[in-house]
Amino acid sequence: MRRVYLDNNATTRVDETVVAKMLPYLTDEFGNASSSHLFGVEVAGAVRAARRNVQALLGAAHDHEIVFTSGGTEADNTAILAALDAREGRDEIVTTRVEHPAILSLVEYLQEKRGVKTHFIGVDEHGRINIDAYRAALGPKTAIVSVMWANNETGTLFPVAELAGYAHEAGALFHTDAVQAVGKTPIDLKSTQIDLLSLSGHKLHGPKGIGALYVRKGTKFSPFIRGGHQERARRGGTENVPGIIGLGAAAELALARLAEDEAHIRALRDRLESSVLRDIGHCRVSGDAPNRLCNTSNIAFFDIEGEAILGHLDRAGVAASTGSACTAGSTEPSHVLQAMNLPPEALRGAVRFSFSRENTAEDVDRVLEILPGIVHKLREISLASRDSEARMGAAS
Amino acid sequence: MRRVYLDNNATTRVDETVVAKMLPYLTDEFGNASSSHLFGVEVAGAVRAARRNVQALLGAAHDHEIVFTSGGTEADNTAILAALDAREGRDEIVTTRVEHPAILSLVEYLQEKRGVKTHFIGVDEHGRINIDAYRAALGPKTAIVSVMWANNETGTLFPVAELAGYAHEAGALFHTDAVQAVGKTPIDLKSTQIDLLSLSGHKLHGPKGIGALYVRKGTKFSPFIRGGHQERARRGGTENVPGIIGLGAAAELALARLAEDEAHIRALRDRLESSVLRDIGHCRVSGDAPNRLCNTSNIAFFDIEGEAILGHLDRAGVAASTGSACTAGSTEPSHVLQAMNLPPEALRGAVRFSFSRENTAEDVDRVLEILPGIVHKLREISLASRDSEARMGAAS
Repeated sequence: MRRVYLDNNATTRVDETVVAKMLPYLTDEFGNASSSHLFGVEVAGAVRAARRNVQALLGAAHDHEIVFTSGGTEADNTAILAALDAREGRDEIVTTRVEHPAILSLVEYLQEKRGVKTHFIGVDEHGRINIDAYRAALGPKTAIVSVMWANNETGTLFPVAELAGYAHEAGALFHTDAVQAVGKTPIDLKSTQIDLLSLSGHKLHGPKGIGALYVRKGTKFSPFIRGGHQERARRGGTENVPGIIGLGAAAELALARLAEDEAHIRALRDRLESSVLRDIGHCRVSGDAPNRLCNTSNIAFFDIEGEAILGHLDRAGVAASTGSACTAGSTEPSHVLQAMNLPPEALRGAVRFSFSRENTAEDVDRVLEILPGIVHKLREISLASRDSEARMGAAS
Repeated sequence: MRRVYLDNNATTRVDETVVAKMLPYLTDEFGNASSSHLFGVEVAGAVRAARRNVQALLGAAHDHEIVFTSGGTEADNTAILAALDAREGRDEIVTTRVEHPAILSLVEYLQEKRGVKTHFIGVDEHGRINIDAYRAALGPKTAIVSVMWANNETGTLFPVAELAGYAHEAGALFHTDAVQAVGKTPIDLKSTQIDLLSLSGHKLHGPKGIGALYVRKGTKFSPFIRGGHQERARRGGTENVPGIIGLGAAAELALARLAEDEAHIRALRDRLESSVLRDIGHCRVSGDAPNRLCNTSNIAFFDIEGEAILGHLDRAGVAASTGSACTAGSTEPSHVLQAMNLPPEALRGAVRFSFSRENTAEDVDRVLEILPGIVHKLREISLASRDSEARMGAAS
């Protein structure tokens, strides 16, 4: 069976050139990057080169602004807690209702257990942040703002540069979870006022278990994971050298191919989306259509269950998702789509298709070959069951 | 130049069979273990098998007692903070003066910033814990005890099973940082009262960037890294699948070879140590000689600098260390040796040789070939400089 992978916002395949660069650091170049002897020194040089590759992808001014972490979630947690720790007299957080659980579950915990007041800014039906409410929430007590660069479920892009400017006017730090944006859209941090940015290796054809937090030079910082003096005493623990090398290689590749990948991916995504809207009907795209990541299409199929569609797709070898893998298995509708006030008939019918540079026109063909039949069948079942409910209602 | 690696307490080479098992999970089997579709389900099965391998190495009763982390430092931080969070009414920590920075730097921070009272129990000149002082420090306010299974600098083993029993008598949780012990000495957690145990993949021929925290079934727990529901909602963040597979493979190998490796390593270590003591002289072994890890030899060469010895060894292709790579570059003498009250003439002359199953008799031969000359030369320089200081003192 031909397998089609359209869940690249959950994770991506590690690029073969990335794997090839990592391999020596598992075997011959196995030293501890913090060791003073030759086994360590050789490895430390490779870590520096990887750091510069991540710097370049982000358009950061200095390579030491990059702190390697175990992934996006650790980077997100670190940013929030570091700001609360370092900004005395400021103890409020401003964020949105549509952040990833890596932000939401932490701030909900901080609110409940440590009394940290958090402002959750809403979005409109296209997933766009309410800027008036955002500006009104900022104040002299705001320690940190955290707004994602791009939403993981809909791909909607947030105006983070503008939002960072407002945060600075209020004297607050600005963090962005850019896990879905890095490698998919151009980023130039030195031209913005963004203080902190999270990214994850495995979303851009790098390995799992590695990510980074950008910390603008001069930002007061407090470590989250405490131990040795690694990462300029900003993150304890032996450096994950193969992971770092892999992330560096993936960043280099993403930067070199950014425009080419974006065009390729957007064309595939747009063809899938327009064909589905035209041929299947009774469905709509969620998110800010003209202002989205090139790779994400979140389509709400009215009156049926997204989970049911996914089950049929999966059995046909096609992988997609209803939303975040971090909440997979949950029976609640997506908090992102709820925040967007999707109509009830659309809320449970969401399917997210997310593309990468590895997808092909044949992948889209395959989905278009099977999806209309799946949706049609599920709608027939749904209609039949509603008819029968209506008859039972009439009979009782 | 023949290179000899005797810094295996800093990190180890990933075993080739481990690398081979990891590789497919970087490429073909790249799914997100939390995804509901086939790409995820296949991977989740492999993660389960790896968890059972770690369970077996620890002699844990249940596989879900294993929570994967990014390494030993994260596991240590998690244990301490989870206990403080979960044990209301108890806010004191009991630990030792010779813990790894992953414990010490966290508890010092908690003491300073959050007013968490910490009892630092001392050790004697052999590095053995003062059990009377330990028992006296335990009380109704103790939330958690953290005592390492084996010291990373000297290899000294702590009586953790006994210490855990005393902790439970006081109603406290017992955590052990077993990063250096796991894979080097038999462990059977189900026969102890240990509640929490940290381990690290790269200390046992697994990859960097992966570790685990054992959490005994029924232990009240609070996550450190907060995000999605991974690891039964105990650790947010996409699972580091290749790392987990690597740790599982390394654990399986370590368990199968434990007795054989221990005998091989101990023989090498003992030959190096006895030859050095006999042929070089004016040096002594630090730590509890009869009660140490099989692989660690920390030798204090009187009246010279360990760093100078290491520099000469390094230029000859031999890697060893003065202590933890996590404190490499520090000019302070080791906190472990200071806590042991080593005589001043020995304090700066420490060199740690740490072996693994990959070392050979030829490695020991090579060290014995060059080390006496290095120590002799450094002692001549040291003596000449002291003579000249004495003459200058007499002349003034």
